[in-house]
Amino acid sequence: MNESKFLNWIYGRGGLDPAVVPVGPGDDMAVVNFPHEQLLVAVDQVLDGVHFDLAAHGPEAAGRKAMARNLSDIAAMAAIPVGAVASVAMPAGLDQADAQAIYHGLRKMGDEFNCPLVGGDVACWGKTTGPLQISVTVFARPADGVTPVLRSGSQAGDAICVTGKLGGAWYSDRHLHFTPRVREAVALARQYEIHAMIDISDGLAKDLGRLCEASGVGAKLQADAIPCHEIAAGRSDVSPLTAALSDGEDYELLLTLPPAQARQLCDDKIPMMGAVAGAKRQPRCLTEPVGITCVGTITKTPSLVIIDANGTSRSLPDSGWEHTT
Amino acid sequence: MNESKFLNWIYGRGGLDPAVVPVGPGDDMAVVNFPHEQLLVAVDQVLDGVHFDLAAHGPEAAGRKAMARNLSDIAAMAAIPVGAVASVAMPAGLDQADAQAIYHGLRKMGDEFNCPLVGGDVACWGKTTGPLQISVTVFARPADGVTPVLRSGSQAGDAICVTGKLGGAWYSDRHLHFTPRVREAVALARQYEIHAMIDISDGLAKDLGRLCEASGVGAKLQADAIPCHEIAAGRSDVSPLTAALSDGEDYELLLTLPPAQARQLCDDKIPMMGAVAGAKRQPRCLTEPVGITCVGTITKTPSLVIIDANGTSRSLPDSGWEHTT
Repeated sequence: MNESKFLNWIYGRGGLDPAVVPVGPGDDMAVVNFPHEQLLVAVDQVLDGVHFDLAAHGPEAAGRKAMARNLSDIAAMAAIPVGAVASVAMPAGLDQADAQAIYHGLRKMGDEFNCPLVGGDVACWGKTTGPLQISVTVFARPADGVTPVLRSGSQAGDAICVTGKLGGAWYSDRHLHFTPRVREAVALARQYEIHAMIDISDGLAKDLGRLCEASGVGAKLQADAIPCHEIAAGRSDVSPLTAALSDGEDYELLLTLPPAQARQLCDDKIPMMGAVAGAKRQPRCLTEPVGITCVGTITKTPSLVIIDANGTSRSLPDSGWEHTT
Repeated sequence: MNESKFLNWIYGRGGLDPAVVPVGPGDDMAVVNFPHEQLLVAVDQVLDGVHFDLAAHGPEAAGRKAMARNLSDIAAMAAIPVGAVASVAMPAGLDQADAQAIYHGLRKMGDEFNCPLVGGDVACWGKTTGPLQISVTVFARPADGVTPVLRSGSQAGDAICVTGKLGGAWYSDRHLHFTPRVREAVALARQYEIHAMIDISDGLAKDLGRLCEASGVGAKLQADAIPCHEIAAGRSDVSPLTAALSDGEDYELLLTLPPAQARQLCDDKIPMMGAVAGAKRQPRCLTEPVGITCVGTITKTPSLVIIDANGTSRSLPDSGWEHTT
């Protein structure tokens, strides 16, 4: 099974009533119309050996990551967390203290973002040997005055921006202890005309591809504008650029907006990366000093291109994380 | 880890704002107050080797069961399904067709109850060998004019009733192909004053214990009134009564209501079991011929007692399904 192929098959199923489900599978969250309210909902899971290493990271970090990934999906819609539920499949060998540590990881992360854990389910692998798996579902509501930001609204000519720095997350504890950009997303959507947004979980290249496909557009990235993380820069096996494009697990925001607004949002010439001392200006909209960098432009032609430092264009490889059996 | 002990620890955590989460962990669904609407939410998972046998039952039946178990939780609150999301952890060896079969199982079951699958997540166990695991979260809304029915409302003197027949579900395909009692629950709650309700997933004894604990009451069961399923009656390893009390996976409703209403609901002397020909009367409330049987009485004393056919009282063993590592 190939994840992208399977998801594309699902997106083609249809059959959902758009009056009830205005946004179905294919965005960071689904949008469901209740009689008097709009609900956003997303599910995401973490598997031992895939998204974390239980022996190395411990159960609390696994729980934290499971919740934080979902909060990142809420950020990608610029929505407000309301609550979460979780299911945990427990392997043999974990005990009560481990179960409590998973709970604490989930709960503390949720509580930081006013996203209470309101329910759950725990089951144990019996005779079958199964590893730890945690599935979290979050639900959210639109922020006051903010329409949920979809992947599908990008327009040719939009500037492409990212928060923070990219690459190498797996080579530090950043993939476990990142801060979901929930507050930043709402602040951005309140002050700027964000056309489309997605969180970067599988790598800039892959997630930009998803955003472009949903919007029916293409993109041109400026290689030397991409904010590579120090960890990525310190790797010897791949270039910092490749790491920033393909590693994934950054949980930063990728957004597109009109270029004039992007100029207002961040200084094009000196991209602000994190809380870098001496950065000319911190983005006005942010509640904590997270940098925003313009990394390219949305194009009408539906292809992904990267322009290297020497001005050479090449097509952006479809690298990044892909689940396969 | 012991499931009950862990869940009791969670129920003691607290810290949820009752204005936002009037019903937290400890019922069949959580209830969450949105600004203009009440949302009910529940999560439940199925594991290969525990809740189904992939080799024997196939992927579509696994998907169906994952959704149906959650619909049964909606039934237990007498609520109306709104939608669902699912996460699937795929083992090596399953292919695109298997993934599609899981989707069909989930989707068709949901669609039968107007519970569209609006989103999901698929991941693959990588180098780690992991079995198939499906987690489903459902969300629901209160039925018009019906307050969600909790586990905690039972009163001493209430009659205890169950739908359908109990026991032996795992020894047929009933644990896979049961019909969640969503329609029946809403019809019951509209016409009768149901004080408390739970679905029977881990056995009558265990789930009655949960309901009584939540309500701070006890119960007396009449052994010869308990509607044992034919499959349970045909087993040689345990008595039909033991099977009905302990097997679980029935996904029938267990409810308590004032005795006068219970008499109105079903004939005390000739319990109606399913569509038994010649049954004196079908319950007026039901949209399909599902029997309702009175099986006992709620008591003030918080103990569980069963009265055998010969009139002997004994304490009800805390048997039934329990997850442990």
